[in-house]
Amino acid sequence: MPKTQEPGMPVLAIDLGGTNMRAGIISDKGEVLAREYTLTRADEGLEAVINRLFTAIDHLLSLKAIRQSPISTISIAAAGVIDTRQGIINASPNLPGWTDVPLRRLIEDKFKLKVFLLNDANAAALGEHRFGAGKGANNLIYVTVSTGIGGGIIIDGQLYSGSSGGAGEVGHMTIDINGPKCNCGNVGCLEVLASGTAIAAEAMRRIRGGESSFLVKVVDSKIENITAEKVAMAAEQGDSLAVDVIAKAAGYLGVGIVNLVNIFNPDMVIIGGGVSKIGDRLLNPVRQLVSARAFPLMAQAVHILPARLGDDAGVIGAAVFAFEQSSQ
Amino acid sequence: MPKTQEPGMPVLAIDLGGTNMRAGIISDKGEVLAREYTLTRADEGLEAVINRLFTAIDHLLSLKAIRQSPISTISIAAAGVIDTRQGIINASPNLPGWTDVPLRRLIEDKFKLKVFLLNDANAAALGEHRFGAGKGANNLIYVTVSTGIGGGIIIDGQLYSGSSGGAGEVGHMTIDINGPKCNCGNVGCLEVLASGTAIAAEAMRRIRGGESSFLVKVVDSKIENITAEKVAMAAEQGDSLAVDVIAKAAGYLGVGIVNLVNIFNPDMVIIGGGVSKIGDRLLNPVRQLVSARAFPLMAQAVHILPARLGDDAGVIGAAVFAFEQSSQ
Repeated sequence: MPKTQEPGMPVLAIDLGGTNMRAGIISDKGEVLAREYTLTRADEGLEAVINRLFTAIDHLLSLKAIRQSPISTISIAAAGVIDTRQGIINASPNLPGWTDVPLRRLIEDKFKLKVFLLNDANAAALGEHRFGAGKGANNLIYVTVSTGIGGGIIIDGQLYSGSSGGAGEVGHMTIDINGPKCNCGNVGCLEVLASGTAIAAEAMRRIRGGESSFLVKVVDSKIENITAEKVAMAAEQGDSLAVDVIAKAAGYLGVGIVNLVNIFNPDMVIIGGGVSKIGDRLLNPVRQLVSARAFPLMAQAVHILPARLGDDAGVIGAAVFAFEQSSQ
Repeated sequence: MPKTQEPGMPVLAIDLGGTNMRAGIISDKGEVLAREYTLTRADEGLEAVINRLFTAIDHLLSLKAIRQSPISTISIAAAGVIDTRQGIINASPNLPGWTDVPLRRLIEDKFKLKVFLLNDANAAALGEHRFGAGKGANNLIYVTVSTGIGGGIIIDGQLYSGSSGGAGEVGHMTIDINGPKCNCGNVGCLEVLASGTAIAAEAMRRIRGGESSFLVKVVDSKIENITAEKVAMAAEQGDSLAVDVIAKAAGYLGVGIVNLVNIFNPDMVIIGGGVSKIGDRLLNPVRQLVSARAFPLMAQAVHILPARLGDDAGVIGAAVFAFEQSSQ
């Protein structure tokens, strides 16, 4: 039987994303006491990723520094639609092949510890609300823009996870009914238009179509190596194709956030994830669209802010989830 | 000073829509003890509508049947973005000219009674949840399709009205980024594509463009007299243009509801409003789109049902709001 979390004991938290896997030991004050990072390499398949996950957990559990304060709880934030109650990864557009994976049981069986599983953006929303940019907000929508686009919803200060734990899939909201098909099976989703993957794909498409860009040099003519990060860097250096691609993605993101503002009338929208590191070049067009298109009552009520916990949001939030579930 | 609502006393409730104004005396069991109806005639301007509102209130207050149980509370559900706390109609795409109207104060001053003001779809959501199709639902999204498209959000059994009382504007969610401009200032909104107004406009556009339809006869060649109701009737009789127009609107509505299902993971979506009287011809395509496009975890969790309170949802819900606010 898994033991239960005792107050004050740190939690081992994992943030399993489409691209990166981060692990850490997190204190109940939200401090990261230890940190590990590897690539997810989802293309190597389910088993390889789970083995990497086990290795990271093993390593963190063995760290001397935490011996005095034993770990009894693991909390996993994973990319995809998660059935939190059952501890199952139901579907994950950015972890190909991860359908109905009982990850909680797999980890419980291996380590004999209490395990929680929740969506990564839900975790980051909690992390930012308790220890980051969202402190004190009443109703907050967190949008993470990275490999995919995810979200987390805080209502009256509490994580809202819906009737089966899957709420917050704001990246899979159709904003272009005639748009491209998304990995999720839906059409014209925000994710397929404004994610890091979409930014890189759009730059590649335009360069392959014959447009010139400084990016070609950056990737040594290996167009397939273009990433959103490289597009953002090129935009900072004034490359006009890159500037344009980012502006277009920011416009899509803005349209999606106008929708969320009209639906939720939140006091805060926080934008996190790797792509959000672009900063004001991404956030200012979003703010402008919200001012121009959302209802004034809602536009005036909302602050649109960058996330503050950076890459730690997921692990900190996963730990917060475990702390708060355990104390209930 | 307005008196406060005593338990068991009925509430005088008004549902002020873009097309219809309904008023009633509602018991704390959700029964409609008296009922009044007039057209809103918003085109006659603010003052004319407010005078009609005063007349309806006067008449209901004078009804013999309720003398024994005096009315101390009026609750108004109005179409538009409502600042519930301040009692102000902030903006109303379907009540032209209604910008920053302090309706609560106007009615308090006139009748010296306690007055509540909330969004009409929020009210209907509450009504359907407490006394209609939504009884027992935990997380429920109510979508009303009539002159416009509005919505109400029930989270954990409670009305969620956002940080300034404006939440639930699901009709003003962009689903077609290249779509037509909406009255609200946003672009490609669900409302401008799938509302009753949109259905009528699309039928008119196609008939004026030369397509033939049984509708031309129905309106005696006065194309401008086509309404969504008439399109629905023509569709029932097999008119192929009408069938097509309804199918297209149902498709848009389905896309919007897929978005809401992915975002909220609700256990219930209720579709009300005049246009919902179309029934399965509207609801079945919505259900099919949710099955096909929403995440399976969410699609399996949600029941998509027609509203049950019909035209009374708004007044019953407005009364529920007053009862529950007063008892807090």
